[in-house]
Amino acid sequence: MTLEINIPEIVQEVTTAFHRYEAALNSNDVATLDALFWDSPHTLRYGIGEQLYGHDQIAAFRSGRDPKFVVDRELLRLWVVTYGRDFGTANCEFRRHGSQRLGRQSHTWMRTANGWRIVAAHVSFQGDATPMKA
Amino acid sequence: MTLEINIPEIVQEVTTAFHRYEAALNSNDVATLDALFWDSPHTLRYGIGEQLYGHDQIAAFRSGRDPKFVVDRELLRLWVVTYGRDFGTANCEFRRHGSQRLGRQSHTWMRTANGWRIVAAHVSFQGDATPMKA
Repeated sequence: MTLEINIPEIVQEVTTAFHRYEAALNSNDVATLDALFWDSPHTLRYGIGEQLYGHDQIAAFRSGRDPKFVVDRELLRLWVVTYGRDFGTANCEFRRHGSQRLGRQSHTWMRTANGWRIVAAHVSFQGDATPMKA
Repeated sequence: MTLEINIPEIVQEVTTAFHRYEAALNSNDVATLDALFWDSPHTLRYGIGEQLYGHDQIAAFRSGRDPKFVVDRELLRLWVVTYGRDFGTANCEFRRHGSQRLGRQSHTWMRTANGWRIVAAHVSFQGDATPMKA
């Protein structure tokens, strides 16, 4: 059994879902951000400063944020890969405007009955990997 | 179409693969680390201090490391979820011995003809999410 990699129409679907999320992030559209995360206790999001387990924790984090806080950022590189017709990963490098730090975002996407949803996410800034400082 | 979540034998398979990787990491077994990453130009690894695209870059990074460098770390929490029979995510929180910083590792695993392989990974330390410092 080997899944077919990067079927063009599936790559397009995941890329579209990714950009929908990105637009919601840059306009602080919390309803869309919540909707695009899989509504499940199994969903996970490691944010820059937090570890969230389950859709409830993720939604609580979003709704607890200052509504004036908007992630205004520039995409530097986007890397979408799909595996068969129901799974994909979307990874990107970004910079928040006014910041010099390089950010990285990883999404694992799954096709659900309601459309493509993020089942796991990880966001971080590139750090200092020097072992002694780690 | 909805994938069955957390079929027990599949969770067991991905958990076993995860622990095999973890053991290789803690003993600096580069051959096993390389083998467990999907041998594809589509494989991605965001490490603490680097962004690697394709298995070649990942393997070059490993082989370029000081062979005396061993990631000696303690697992604090492991979160494995599987989707159908061919896909899984394994996320964990960890601390390197001698460090106070909280680490997070995300793996997306796929079943291939050669066994379970990591198709995308992201490792980071929890950071300061204060918008002004970002």
